[in-house]
Amino acid sequence: MSMIADSIIHALHNALGEGNFPLHEPRFSGNEQRYVQGCIASTYVSSVGAYVERFEEELAAYAGARRAVAVVNGTAALQVALQLAGVQANDEVIVPALTFVATANAVRYLGAVPHFADSEEATLGLDPHVLRVWLKSAAEPAGDAYRNRQTGRRLRALVPMHTFGHPCNLEGLLAVAHDYRLALVEDAAESLGSRYQGQHTGTFGLLGTLSFNGNKIITTGGGGAILMNDERLADHAKHLTTTAKLPHRWDYVHDEVGYNFRMPNLNAAVGCAQLEQLPEFLASKRRLFERYQEALADINEVCLMREPSGCESNYWLHTLVLSDVVADLRDTILQATNDTGLMTRPAWRLMHRLEPYTECPRAPLPVAESLERRIVNLPSSAGLA
Amino acid sequence: MSMIADSIIHALHNALGEGNFPLHEPRFSGNEQRYVQGCIASTYVSSVGAYVERFEEELAAYAGARRAVAVVNGTAALQVALQLAGVQANDEVIVPALTFVATANAVRYLGAVPHFADSEEATLGLDPHVLRVWLKSAAEPAGDAYRNRQTGRRLRALVPMHTFGHPCNLEGLLAVAHDYRLALVEDAAESLGSRYQGQHTGTFGLLGTLSFNGNKIITTGGGGAILMNDERLADHAKHLTTTAKLPHRWDYVHDEVGYNFRMPNLNAAVGCAQLEQLPEFLASKRRLFERYQEALADINEVCLMREPSGCESNYWLHTLVLSDVVADLRDTILQATNDTGLMTRPAWRLMHRLEPYTECPRAPLPVAESLERRIVNLPSSAGLA
Repeated sequence: MSMIADSIIHALHNALGEGNFPLHEPRFSGNEQRYVQGCIASTYVSSVGAYVERFEEELAAYAGARRAVAVVNGTAALQVALQLAGVQANDEVIVPALTFVATANAVRYLGAVPHFADSEEATLGLDPHVLRVWLKSAAEPAGDAYRNRQTGRRLRALVPMHTFGHPCNLEGLLAVAHDYRLALVEDAAESLGSRYQGQHTGTFGLLGTLSFNGNKIITTGGGGAILMNDERLADHAKHLTTTAKLPHRWDYVHDEVGYNFRMPNLNAAVGCAQLEQLPEFLASKRRLFERYQEALADINEVCLMREPSGCESNYWLHTLVLSDVVADLRDTILQATNDTGLMTRPAWRLMHRLEPYTECPRAPLPVAESLERRIVNLPSSAGLA
Repeated sequence: MSMIADSIIHALHNALGEGNFPLHEPRFSGNEQRYVQGCIASTYVSSVGAYVERFEEELAAYAGARRAVAVVNGTAALQVALQLAGVQANDEVIVPALTFVATANAVRYLGAVPHFADSEEATLGLDPHVLRVWLKSAAEPAGDAYRNRQTGRRLRALVPMHTFGHPCNLEGLLAVAHDYRLALVEDAAESLGSRYQGQHTGTFGLLGTLSFNGNKIITTGGGGAILMNDERLADHAKHLTTTAKLPHRWDYVHDEVGYNFRMPNLNAAVGCAQLEQLPEFLASKRRLFERYQEALADINEVCLMREPSGCESNYWLHTLVLSDVVADLRDTILQATNDTGLMTRPAWRLMHRLEPYTECPRAPLPVAESLERRIVNLPSSAGLA
């Protein structure tokens, strides 16, 4: 085993104590059992029920969005948000190359094409300055919009993703979106609880999306939500995600191609209990950051990702960024840590290197490519500190 | 109130006793609470967990399919089944006009076009004889397949749906599918527990799909499944519905555009408990059929839908078929029954009369149009008899 892997393992045990540590475990120490029992006893476990509305209201209030619409998962949330933002077949949507595959898939489900852009080291999210330079040469005006000069496709939307819970540079990205007439839709799947200049992520663009998958900061088993401030968009989101059925006492009339994407009440019951514990989870993750920080302070070859300036991160997944000199040792570190029961993982393979997306348009991606080689996520469950 | 509505209300109360009766309520009288509590206590509520595998195995064993893949709902199940059956953008897929909108939507999600066909009075499902006559004029050979003579689109698949749990004429439809080189995919969303000549619905075609929405004979809150006998198809179904991630200890590599469609373990826990009670639910629904039969025997203007010959129906939703002489009174009957707390509903509006599908190709639909005017579903929950 390499020296560096050895030092990291030692440091992690200093922070966490002895034992095995999964990457991210959910924690059910609140009202989960009680709410779920009540939900089953009521028989309202499915498409109708009080927990869905309550979860939506509490989520909106927490995030400071006017409305939240709960759906079946974060991917579905993003697909619908993009559709509501006007994304159509054969449009291009700018997304980071450094993201989970759902970001690109949601674009593809609409028949649109992801256009990959580079990230910045400070936030791990899209770099607005580099994006602006790229668009200056890659985009050309077409009517009141812009199109990709090479493909001729309309550039329709911009989807920043808040990587591992760290807010990206929203101010810069909003300006780029404005100048290039792009709808901004935030993929905040990983950043519930994260704030940019005091305002909750997912509330800056036209729409924002959240995920409550089992590995997220709070979970509903499977689940997601769309955040927005526009009431009409929210009503439309609800309509589209509930099969687009017109309200009627008995008639089954659907006025557009809708989706079966509503969150079941059973899952929303878990969500309500989880949301109550979110402040506690956030505090615990922040304490863990401090412990990791202290434990890793002396290892000069690695850097622990900290919240960008002006931001409050939820520290969903703690992240080591290796320096270039040890980047070649990433797999050795992954191997050694996992072998000793400390579950770590690398960043996702970059989107343009995945089989279904190799042919998509993309900007130069030097930073994303570098980060891909240097990121190692650490055990991050709430309750570890 | 009309005489006929009055007689029906009287008959329903004879069968059900006094009180209010929803159309279909789920029933949680088994191990639901116990399994869900165990699931939450284990922390495995999401994409990993023992209940999903158990549910899939028990479901496959119950239906006599080699494999079952549990997914997030019946619509997702059908979308993926159609994709695995080879449906591509711009293909046509033959579906009944008399169905829930999800059947048509699943086709549309793939960029394909639904082609609506007529139903038969005996089964409420696709009429194979009429379909054959229609295809003789509407289809023409093109290579080793057939295309729609008018639109030029390839006819790719045939999707029978077992309406309200009554198996349709599978023998006839399999023959049509064979002769016109159509993949047969069964939409068995409503027919868990229904058998055609002793064999479970959903296991006749290349793939079949189930739904466990809150209104179905068993529920998982939201859920569905794909049934199939081909192991390779099943492995592919699992892969596609779990983001198409290649198995690796830490790497995130996805080799095709997958979906986030897996059923959460929390929902599968409910499903395992529900499946244990399915025989009891089926027996109760059959008893209710007999009670309705007796209570409605003297009302000559209505006919209670019974299982087609050679079939065993699950009697998911009990169904009155009005005779032509009282078809004009359908809404009066719906109004009167709902006003007195007996929840009834009509058939779905036919697909070709829904805004998003008015322009789709279709056969003449006299029987579906007639049935649409004459169907009234009755309170059908398990446990009513």
